[in-house]
Amino acid sequence: MDCKRTVFFISDRTGVTVENLGHSLLNQFEGVALDCFTVPFVDSVERSHAVLNKINIIASLTQQQVIVISSLVNPELRALFDHHDHIVHMDFFSTFMPPLEQALNMRARMIAGLTHGIADERRYDERMEAVNFALSNDDGITEKNYHAADIILIGVSRSGKTPTCLYLALQYGILAANYPLTQDDLDHNQIPKMIAPYRDKLFGLTIDYKRLSRIREERRPHSKYANPLNCDFEVRTAESLFKRYNIPNLSTTNRSVEELAAAIMQMKNLSRRS
Amino acid sequence: MDCKRTVFFISDRTGVTVENLGHSLLNQFEGVALDCFTVPFVDSVERSHAVLNKINIIASLTQQQVIVISSLVNPELRALFDHHDHIVHMDFFSTFMPPLEQALNMRARMIAGLTHGIADERRYDERMEAVNFALSNDDGITEKNYHAADIILIGVSRSGKTPTCLYLALQYGILAANYPLTQDDLDHNQIPKMIAPYRDKLFGLTIDYKRLSRIREERRPHSKYANPLNCDFEVRTAESLFKRYNIPNLSTTNRSVEELAAAIMQMKNLSRRS
Repeated sequence: MDCKRTVFFISDRTGVTVENLGHSLLNQFEGVALDCFTVPFVDSVERSHAVLNKINIIASLTQQQVIVISSLVNPELRALFDHHDHIVHMDFFSTFMPPLEQALNMRARMIAGLTHGIADERRYDERMEAVNFALSNDDGITEKNYHAADIILIGVSRSGKTPTCLYLALQYGILAANYPLTQDDLDHNQIPKMIAPYRDKLFGLTIDYKRLSRIREERRPHSKYANPLNCDFEVRTAESLFKRYNIPNLSTTNRSVEELAAAIMQMKNLSRRS
Repeated sequence: MDCKRTVFFISDRTGVTVENLGHSLLNQFEGVALDCFTVPFVDSVERSHAVLNKINIIASLTQQQVIVISSLVNPELRALFDHHDHIVHMDFFSTFMPPLEQALNMRARMIAGLTHGIADERRYDERMEAVNFALSNDDGITEKNYHAADIILIGVSRSGKTPTCLYLALQYGILAANYPLTQDDLDHNQIPKMIAPYRDKLFGLTIDYKRLSRIREERRPHSKYANPLNCDFEVRTAESLFKRYNIPNLSTTNRSVEELAAAIMQMKNLSRRS
């Protein structure tokens, strides 16, 4: 391809879902240069026309079809992007609603804004409470809430515990605490006293020592803390601890927080809170 | 409907996207009782067969068609769920790939795991650094990083600043700090000194005082802090501050962190980092 293609992700809500899905589709095409625009909250005729105008201009300038991946509940708004020669329009609702209506033997309501908002206040508050829990039980600050935790992540400093806890809280409402394996813990090579009573809740995070060294180097350049040999020692000792006590664990080296959280939920057989 | 319907969200990755999208579709059907199962990391024939067995059992027990919404890149795995009378199978890839291939005039690679992982280490690390930034610049702890912030959320205690900052960081890689408007700030009714130099970065969060009172009551029952009259005063004063200084703002009363973050990105014209 010698020319960039333009993609619009259009949603009547946040656009995050359609954007994620769109990228997972587009990533399957190698070497295509893309200009992507995400337009959230397209929930009125005015807003739809504003986006459409932008698309028309781009299509005319680039002399290429613009790809529109949309998630618009309102059929009227959706239709505005249909039947243009310069637009390839793929919409989730119009594609999946008919088979779903048939399967459920029922008509869809087609009302925008039914998800992602605070549909259920208590459920939403629980999710936010989980965020507070993750924050106040980060980095072994206190042990007094470990009994309430759904899970306690353990690992060496910078192995990815904090962001994983936060994502578990935000996405799944899970009460996730974490405990950092310190030099002292590693020297003793046994489960630290503070977390010993909660064996069933422990989940280990490990990481390739070279990647760990790079991450720590950003924090404290040229320190023993970031030294590859020291990182190697810490990681190996932590891993042997996981093995000895049979603590399930995952490497964070090539896994995003999204993947880690989903895998932890599965391995520990946890369910979304609510 | 007098019987529960079973829905499987099946993904070769985390399942979060297909689950979100599935719920946005299913929320359009009122009064349907659903049993939903999310199965992530279905990336082998073995795992696919394991899920399929589960589906077969449920279909046979409930004597109802099972709805499968999937996002499976591998056409072989996908096909396993096709052509069963007891399964309604909707798959994103097989639905959207053909029109996309045509639009791009190119065959898709159909390789699993191309997204959500750490495809780009530097980009991922920036996202994690944003999480660290949000944590170390939470609640007005320090002002020394405000110059580096993309945005500074301000609002009264418990108006939703912290989770919104964290979500902005995790999802968009935005450097988000926050500053709590204290009693002292509100009494003075002017922009606090600490954040005055960063007027352009300020974004206000407000909240219905009754909801605020309920949230605070959970923290400190029967306190002045949680008292509805006090909450009303704080919220009104904060809002008048936003108005006087022309600070863009949003109410968190009926908006989830996902919606707040997307709206803030749009209103402040911010782009995903990197």
